[in-house]
Amino acid sequence: MANPVTVEVTRGARVESRHRGAVIAVDGDGKVVFSLGDVEAATFPRSACKAMQALPLVESGAADAYGFGDRELALACSSHNGEDEHVAVAASMLARAGRDVEALECGGHWSSSQKVLIHQARTMESPTALHNNCSGKHSGFVCTCVHQGVDPKGYIGYDHPLQREIRATMESLTGAVLGHDNCGTDGCSIPTYAVPLRGLAHGFARMATGNGLEPLRAKASRRLFDACMAEPFYVAGTGRFCTKLMQLAPGRIFAKTGAEGVFCAAIPDQGISIAVKCDDGHARAAESMVAAALARFFDKDSAIGAGLADLATSSMHNWNGIHVGDIRAAAVLSD
Amino acid sequence: MANPVTVEVTRGARVESRHRGAVIAVDGDGKVVFSLGDVEAATFPRSACKAMQALPLVESGAADAYGFGDRELALACSSHNGEDEHVAVAASMLARAGRDVEALECGGHWSSSQKVLIHQARTMESPTALHNNCSGKHSGFVCTCVHQGVDPKGYIGYDHPLQREIRATMESLTGAVLGHDNCGTDGCSIPTYAVPLRGLAHGFARMATGNGLEPLRAKASRRLFDACMAEPFYVAGTGRFCTKLMQLAPGRIFAKTGAEGVFCAAIPDQGISIAVKCDDGHARAAESMVAAALARFFDKDSAIGAGLADLATSSMHNWNGIHVGDIRAAAVLSD
Repeated sequence: MANPVTVEVTRGARVESRHRGAVIAVDGDGKVVFSLGDVEAATFPRSACKAMQALPLVESGAADAYGFGDRELALACSSHNGEDEHVAVAASMLARAGRDVEALECGGHWSSSQKVLIHQARTMESPTALHNNCSGKHSGFVCTCVHQGVDPKGYIGYDHPLQREIRATMESLTGAVLGHDNCGTDGCSIPTYAVPLRGLAHGFARMATGNGLEPLRAKASRRLFDACMAEPFYVAGTGRFCTKLMQLAPGRIFAKTGAEGVFCAAIPDQGISIAVKCDDGHARAAESMVAAALARFFDKDSAIGAGLADLATSSMHNWNGIHVGDIRAAAVLSD
Repeated sequence: MANPVTVEVTRGARVESRHRGAVIAVDGDGKVVFSLGDVEAATFPRSACKAMQALPLVESGAADAYGFGDRELALACSSHNGEDEHVAVAASMLARAGRDVEALECGGHWSSSQKVLIHQARTMESPTALHNNCSGKHSGFVCTCVHQGVDPKGYIGYDHPLQREIRATMESLTGAVLGHDNCGTDGCSIPTYAVPLRGLAHGFARMATGNGLEPLRAKASRRLFDACMAEPFYVAGTGRFCTKLMQLAPGRIFAKTGAEGVFCAAIPDQGISIAVKCDDGHARAAESMVAAALARFFDKDSAIGAGLADLATSSMHNWNGIHVGDIRAAAVLSD
């Protein structure tokens, strides 16, 4: 059966396009608080699970050994715009472990932000791996290896000790079995594992609440969430949705996007986590979905509630600035 | 009822994302040769109908008066990349009518092609209306007005004589009623009208065959299709799908994309036209859908048939060049 329409894109008085998907909110015990669509479907979390993948960096003691603060930890969990500040922090993370851009195995690409791309085109010949949106995560990976005395070479490989450690961490958090059977290769070349959307949400709820986690992991989880919420620019960048969500509710909302229409979020003080997947992979729909789902947990009249409802609807303006339509969460999600 | 899944996006051995949509192929009499999904749903054709909107340029005699050849007519039907050649032809069209960029009311924007955008960022401060992907269409509009002795000022408005003429032309071709009720504003600020996908396909089949058209319109239609097929670079540009489809089968396939997942095509020598709409508006899916639908009309073993099957599937490679998955037409469409 098809998932419900969760987002409508209007033009004039009509709906022009429709996005379907699944949405789930769970508490720290995994109890389903809200759900729409097939939340058991195996879903590649892609970059939405970077905070999970960053746990070894903190748990190993590497983050402390290299003196990483909120910015470095936020960048380790980020899919950033490749803005100058992002690149500088990634480079400094590597430098503290005695490494440089040569250690990164993620490949390079131009920024996905048009404004940043124009700046990049005017100031450099071509992007390096430091400009890759995943360079913070990869810098964290290299630091984790170096601190543990493991050769970082080949750290993107399925059988490298780092990926084994990440796999075990994610299995424990999501309750899903990860292996070759549900493994794909991510844009930055590391393995990504398809897990039920419900397991993904539960993993983030465990991180947000500490429920059922060893003290070391509970503390590391909280530290990563706090770092992202304290430095939301370093989780994404100028104009980006993750950054906007966290800036709207400082210290109260954690949010992280992933490619192909995935978005994860948590409200630590309510012990709630949310995961959404837009069937067709469109980011505009995942953004509207996660904002509308988050809005369900705040008073409509509060600044956060109103701000989330606002973020759940985007006005579209054409090249002359004329309002031509909206991207809006469907009633099934927003009511 | 939901439209069927027409395109699957894989990662590793799994389907990561799914696109739904409607597809129709009709002949010049409007007989449905193939269809999938709700083909009666009102659909904004957006830029896919530019060849219809360019008919007044030819029928009014403006194209002849200004000495327009295939390149100018192809550009009048185009959504181009804003490459230097596109900009130059648009400027020269305006110049022949004694106008310049100031006459264009489409607004300016940077190229949607990353490669072109990088070139633009390095060679200019900001884009003008000539760089707008619709500048060829708008230049044609201005020329049509000037040739007819109509003040082009405000030519983007619903009540301007040019838009009235375009509305009458499209009503006659699609068999649909166009008015405020089904009108939205397009990205370039002109009206766009939601019509049944079947009517859109029938309109293009009429243009491809001349069936039921006055001789003047039949001739103008054929001239526009021939121009696009002769100069496919000027219909889109480097690396673009419209251009690739027409380059694959010179003189045998006409193809034009529109925003929000619309694609129209025609095979004039078979008297067939195709229209597709991806429900969620994603271009990658519309491309795969139109290529797979076109492939149904060619021998699988022919160069064109094999080339279309190839275009219906796109390999996705990550930043390190590793093959991570495919975008492919679902069996319901490709079998």
